Amino acid sequence: MSHSNLKFIQREQLKVKPKASELGFGKYFTDHMFVMDYSTEQGWYDGRIVPYGPISLDPSAMVFHYGQEVFEGMKAYKTEKEGIVLFRPNMNVKRMNDSCDRLSIPQIDTEYVLSAIKELIKIDQEWIPEGDGTSLYIRPFIIATEPCLGVRAAKQYQLLVIMSPVGSYYKEGIHPVSIYVEDHYVRAVRGGTGAAKTSGNYAAGIKAQEVAKDLGYSQVLWLDGVENKYIEEVGSMNVFFKVNGEVITPELSGSILAGITRDSVIAMLRSWGVPVTERKISVEELFDAHQKGQLEEAFGTGTAAVISPIGSMKWEEQQIEIAGGEIGECAHKLYDSITGIQRGTLDDPFGWRQVVK
Amino acid sequence: MSHSNLKFIQREQLKVKPKASELGFGKYFTDHMFVMDYSTEQGWYDGRIVPYGPISLDPSAMVFHYGQEVFEGMKAYKTEKEGIVLFRPNMNVKRMNDSCDRLSIPQIDTEYVLSAIKELIKIDQEWIPEGDGTSLYIRPFIIATEPCLGVRAAKQYQLLVIMSPVGSYYKEGIHPVSIYVEDHYVRAVRGGTGAAKTSGNYAAGIKAQEVAKDLGYSQVLWLDGVENKYIEEVGSMNVFFKVNGEVITPELSGSILAGITRDSVIAMLRSWGVPVTERKISVEELFDAHQKGQLEEAFGTGTAAVISPIGSMKWEEQQIEIAGGEIGECAHKLYDSITGIQRGTLDDPFGWRQVVK
Repeated sequence: MSHSNLKFIQREQLKVKPKASELGFGKYFTDHMFVMDYSTEQGWYDGRIVPYGPISLDPSAMVFHYGQEVFEGMKAYKTEKEGIVLFRPNMNVKRMNDSCDRLSIPQIDTEYVLSAIKELIKIDQEWIPEGDGTSLYIRPFIIATEPCLGVRAAKQYQLLVIMSPVGSYYKEGIHPVSIYVEDHYVRAVRGGTGAAKTSGNYAAGIKAQEVAKDLGYSQVLWLDGVENKYIEEVGSMNVFFKVNGEVITPELSGSILAGITRDSVIAMLRSWGVPVTERKISVEELFDAHQKGQLEEAFGTGTAAVISPIGSMKWEEQQIEIAGGEIGECAHKLYDSITGIQRGTLDDPFGWRQVVK
Repeated sequence: MSHSNLKFIQREQLKVKPKASELGFGKYFTDHMFVMDYSTEQGWYDGRIVPYGPISLDPSAMVFHYGQEVFEGMKAYKTEKEGIVLFRPNMNVKRMNDSCDRLSIPQIDTEYVLSAIKELIKIDQEWIPEGDGTSLYIRPFIIATEPCLGVRAAKQYQLLVIMSPVGSYYKEGIHPVSIYVEDHYVRAVRGGTGAAKTSGNYAAGIKAQEVAKDLGYSQVLWLDGVENKYIEEVGSMNVFFKVNGEVITPELSGSILAGITRDSVIAMLRSWGVPVTERKISVEELFDAHQKGQLEEAFGTGTAAVISPIGSMKWEEQQIEIAGGEIGECAHKLYDSITGIQRGTLDDPFGWRQVVK
């Protein structure tokens, strides 16, 4: 696909770009966005790149009432040797379709959407920040737009892709986070929507996050909705533990997001000869391992932070420190290796980089 | 409150009203809507009644990504003796605040919002249909409007109230529905958002509803998310069973909506001397009761249908017929009594009607 066969309406007056130091996360948006509509009669149609700006919806649009929505998150980087690259974007568009399936939203043409995303990045490439740790965050999402209050799958949707230059997650070096094990609120349960990237999972988690913050912790560790016993995710990240030389992570049980950074971490660890097991992990098992001096590291994985080391955990009356409250060796090596591949400063043995331009 | 202290921008050209026979549910909307904004600095501000029409939001508005949203549903009726009435509207605005609490959305001034709703109804009163079984459906909802991709509670919201004239739920008499007991998909779990009226719960249910429809059933019976054993709701209604002379309904466990029709049904049955118990009910217990010939009736309750009798249920390999596939005596009497109070054709011993004008 080239400019010529994708409709493009250029913004007349380009925006002033924010300074690298002011970026933060998801606060500023680029000059353009990709939009595409769906109707049962036409399927997905009228894909177009247009100036970034407000969208107009009927107040009865179904997304406002019954939450039929899915989204994705990915990042573009400027590299020295290969120009602009994406990190495993095929997995994002594939996962978007998995989410669509759970939410009864029509499937997208993943190849078309990915090429549209690349086109959009090329048009707004001046927005990719170049400072250490910065990137261009890309947010594709689909909303049910049909104006109707019946509780059923909508007949009209809109897919949008918006982009935001984001600052470094670790401005002042990597600081391990303190975690509160949540034993009241539940994010998701098997049979629910936990494995899909959909708004309701995040809505369900906001309250617990506020409670944890008030108690002085930065993130929530989610337990399973059935037994309130097995570890699922941390905040909106997947989670890993290094216990006695082995790395363990919760298995994809149906209520956990199949993270792309999670998948990359598993592959990378295995390539290094580090044993990785995906299985059920009870919070009790972890605290026992800590007692025995075997809990060596803990860290979250996700697109925003890549690797987020966990320095301490609080569960009921117990508070433990992990890796001396510092980033562990394994987490550090993973962070350097994955960000090195993403930013093009390291070789890419797995073929994870995809050149945009 | 009167017109004079609530900002009102009148529509210049009123819409053509649909015919009573074309109404359906939530397809047509009245001439005006109520809108009010929230910011952390100003609280809720600028309540106003304006022409019904599209709303404009930044594509990064948080509702599109993290689903911070709550809604309500209520109906206005035209009565002969008292003019326009609402049915227990204080419970709706009170419940809206309960939902806001779970979703970390700021509390509303329930009195102010209710008086704004009444004002809106008065302005658009010509839209209240008068045919048998028809009413004006009122949908208040709150969405997170802050343009930011951070996962946290938003700092900006909008509350809207839109209204839709709706046709009779039972155009051709009350037909019992066939129910499919869902043992894979889960609507909600304790610790989740099931007790709140929020979009994510409905999004989670759409897929199962489609599967049930494909199998030839009209609604899904939801089981609890923990043990997949206890009955929670049917479709988007609360559910009641009459077993051996006693009426039983699932207790408000935290994952079930505290329905206003549910509450009314319990109060009314008790006033008739019918024993009602709110407790855990396993699907197995129900099918056993049917085996013994003791399952006399089953029905859903909700604002849309008021009472929706259940004529048959399918669970795993068992398919049972209830009350001979007809509406039961108890369900019928409840339907006539509640709709009679709502439409002003019966006395209102409970004080449930609230006169708008």
